[in-house]
Amino acid sequence: MSLAISPAYCVATYRCYDEKADFHKKATGIAVGLTVGSWTELPEARKAEMEKHLGRVVGVDVHEPSAGEPASARYADIRIAYPDMNFSRDIPALLVTVFGKLSMDGRIKLIDLAFSESFLSAFPGPRFGIEGVRNLLGVHDRPLLMSIFKSVIGHDLPALREQFYQQALGGVDLIKDDEILFENPLTPIEKRVELCMQAAAEAERETGQKLLYAANLTGPTFGLVEQAKKAINAGANALLFNVLAYGFDALSELSRHPDINVPLMAHPSLAGALYPSPYHGIAANVLLGKLMRLAGADLVLFPSPYGSVVMPKEENMAIKEALLTTEAADYIYGAPASSHGQVPLAASFPVPSAGIHPGLVPLILRDFGGQVVVNAGGGVHGHPMGAAAGGRAFRQAIDGRQAGVPLREYAADGHPELQEAIDAWGIKE
Amino acid sequence: MSLAISPAYCVATYRCYDEKADFHKKATGIAVGLTVGSWTELPEARKAEMEKHLGRVVGVDVHEPSAGEPASARYADIRIAYPDMNFSRDIPALLVTVFGKLSMDGRIKLIDLAFSESFLSAFPGPRFGIEGVRNLLGVHDRPLLMSIFKSVIGHDLPALREQFYQQALGGVDLIKDDEILFENPLTPIEKRVELCMQAAAEAERETGQKLLYAANLTGPTFGLVEQAKKAINAGANALLFNVLAYGFDALSELSRHPDINVPLMAHPSLAGALYPSPYHGIAANVLLGKLMRLAGADLVLFPSPYGSVVMPKEENMAIKEALLTTEAADYIYGAPASSHGQVPLAASFPVPSAGIHPGLVPLILRDFGGQVVVNAGGGVHGHPMGAAAGGRAFRQAIDGRQAGVPLREYAADGHPELQEAIDAWGIKE
Repeated sequence: MSLAISPAYCVATYRCYDEKADFHKKATGIAVGLTVGSWTELPEARKAEMEKHLGRVVGVDVHEPSAGEPASARYADIRIAYPDMNFSRDIPALLVTVFGKLSMDGRIKLIDLAFSESFLSAFPGPRFGIEGVRNLLGVHDRPLLMSIFKSVIGHDLPALREQFYQQALGGVDLIKDDEILFENPLTPIEKRVELCMQAAAEAERETGQKLLYAANLTGPTFGLVEQAKKAINAGANALLFNVLAYGFDALSELSRHPDINVPLMAHPSLAGALYPSPYHGIAANVLLGKLMRLAGADLVLFPSPYGSVVMPKEENMAIKEALLTTEAADYIYGAPASSHGQVPLAASFPVPSAGIHPGLVPLILRDFGGQVVVNAGGGVHGHPMGAAAGGRAFRQAIDGRQAGVPLREYAADGHPELQEAIDAWGIKE
Repeated sequence: MSLAISPAYCVATYRCYDEKADFHKKATGIAVGLTVGSWTELPEARKAEMEKHLGRVVGVDVHEPSAGEPASARYADIRIAYPDMNFSRDIPALLVTVFGKLSMDGRIKLIDLAFSESFLSAFPGPRFGIEGVRNLLGVHDRPLLMSIFKSVIGHDLPALREQFYQQALGGVDLIKDDEILFENPLTPIEKRVELCMQAAAEAERETGQKLLYAANLTGPTFGLVEQAKKAINAGANALLFNVLAYGFDALSELSRHPDINVPLMAHPSLAGALYPSPYHGIAANVLLGKLMRLAGADLVLFPSPYGSVVMPKEENMAIKEALLTTEAADYIYGAPASSHGQVPLAASFPVPSAGIHPGLVPLILRDFGGQVVVNAGGGVHGHPMGAAAGGRAFRQAIDGRQAGVPLREYAADGHPELQEAIDAWGIKE
């Protein structure tokens, strides 16, 4: 049968646990139920018309429990292709189609997404991406360094300015607001940004170094653009955003808004409600990887595998891959796995966060390579010689590592801040 | 110590699983870490200033595994009070504060929320609520009946109009779009609404009955108000909204927008990514109960405990309670449990959905009482005599039940549509 319109598909991969289910039947039920609704009872003439709307089962890989595994370990990875003409070119429509009702249907987790070329083409992706962020900072030859305000709630403007200045003096490339700092009478965003950007300029005269300040974009959804403009007008040269509290589409629209011409940093706030269960939710590589990049995050924070808030290493690597890959086959359903196809989205900076101290820098760079933002809070502010020294210790660790010198050796060679950090927190390699 | 400002608190309850943790220490860590950041090392003078921003441990109930339970069954319910001056009066700020970073911190689930009176006062809640919806329909003496389009994707306007008309003829009170029907060239919302509302008027001349049509509100976040207005201008007298794909705040703002003067129906799409795990996510009573009502949903769909997409009965009852309760102590932290305090929000209609047929009506009414919307898709369209008969069978089941007549008896007494439904699907009581 020839089709008048050749459908293009977005593909969702699910992991379904069930001790007894006929997974092939379940897959067909999904493919039909979430698209045309019913199929076998349709008259032939209708089938011809409806076929372009019909979902397809692309794969069913059943994992039968091996000896020693309980029956509950039985699962299947099911891949369903959804015609993209069934939904509009936005992430809510995609997610509602592929995992709206289905999310409530037993033990099922969304573990991967691939997009049709036409769906993907509706997304400009990160406006800056890794290269753009590097261009703004004029730093191309090393991993970046970010620090986080220590405590912000209840502090007044002079206190925040001083915290900011000390961090900036340490040579960090980026400073981000705490994600729980909302509009408040003590430190309203336009005042906070103005003072902190003055501190940045002051520090730049000392360090010779540019700096991005990601101010926290909060408040009512329909006022986000105005709030962003207010921050930008006050001098903010980046914005932090709690994406999952607002939905991916808000990020997607912010990222393509002509007046919001600064990098957007995605915070993973609330992500732990979605990714950790093996049986439910949305896997980290989709949630904090592909969808963040698709929605235009220039930088993406996620829990590091090193610290107090942990994520398994392989999930971290899957997020990194999703943010950085140029291989079209990873993003586009039907794209050949070859060196020719490119992901038509700029790469997003991975920012593994939580529990980071200078002694972890070699490990971070080994795991993530050079395209990473080393991000620390306590590891900067808790430095025995203060926050500025904390930043310097990280920069020294990065420089030492870039020079190929072992950390202890580099520290001993006239880098007392790094030495102090190692004495305090050790080295993990 | 006397405080210049007496803080008011919103309280989050978490269930934390951990085989060995000192749960009291963990609770203190949350209360401090998610508010002022650090406490013990603060100078006394700062403590006086900061105390109004400090979170408080309200309760730690440890469940030690009993004999026969594995060590992994050890958990604690931890209640933390967060000063509401720490966050702005919107749901993203509240959720990011109480469960942003914390959601990623091991096995922890948000199982309840109570609000300060001042936080709550920022939310008008459902504009219509149960009474308002009943007033629009002129129906005050029985549960309502809703039906869902059967299949919509790939169907043209005349086909949808005909489906709508058949459903309306059956005497349903509400008809909702399928949540996966997005803007599309075949059935754009303004054309669809116009034709379906014509069909509604036509059916009303037959049935004498009013009807609400909840058209699916979709598309870009920042265009939702315009899209809603387009639907309303075309005649839509209700809107369906995939709340979790956009965040609670979008619903909250839509519900208080002066031009969106129709009931809002919240779809639970994607909720299964959040509520089912015992170890992660947000419990159904919070996600589909309190937060939906707070955000202004007039009607809230959720998976029924009866059908194919199931939710445990006690979770269903907890949602119902959250949507209906008038007891202030359920919503306001510090409110006395008494008959005097009222929840300052209209009640939202519970709409248990999936797998509903007429033979379940007695059970639904026993579980939910009279303030419920009986909602069916296949139970209407799959009726052996067609969709109009399907609607009638439900209305008969409701009428019979209201009259106190057993269903089989009522069916035999001149209600052939109900009889056919019982023959097809049986009765479950």
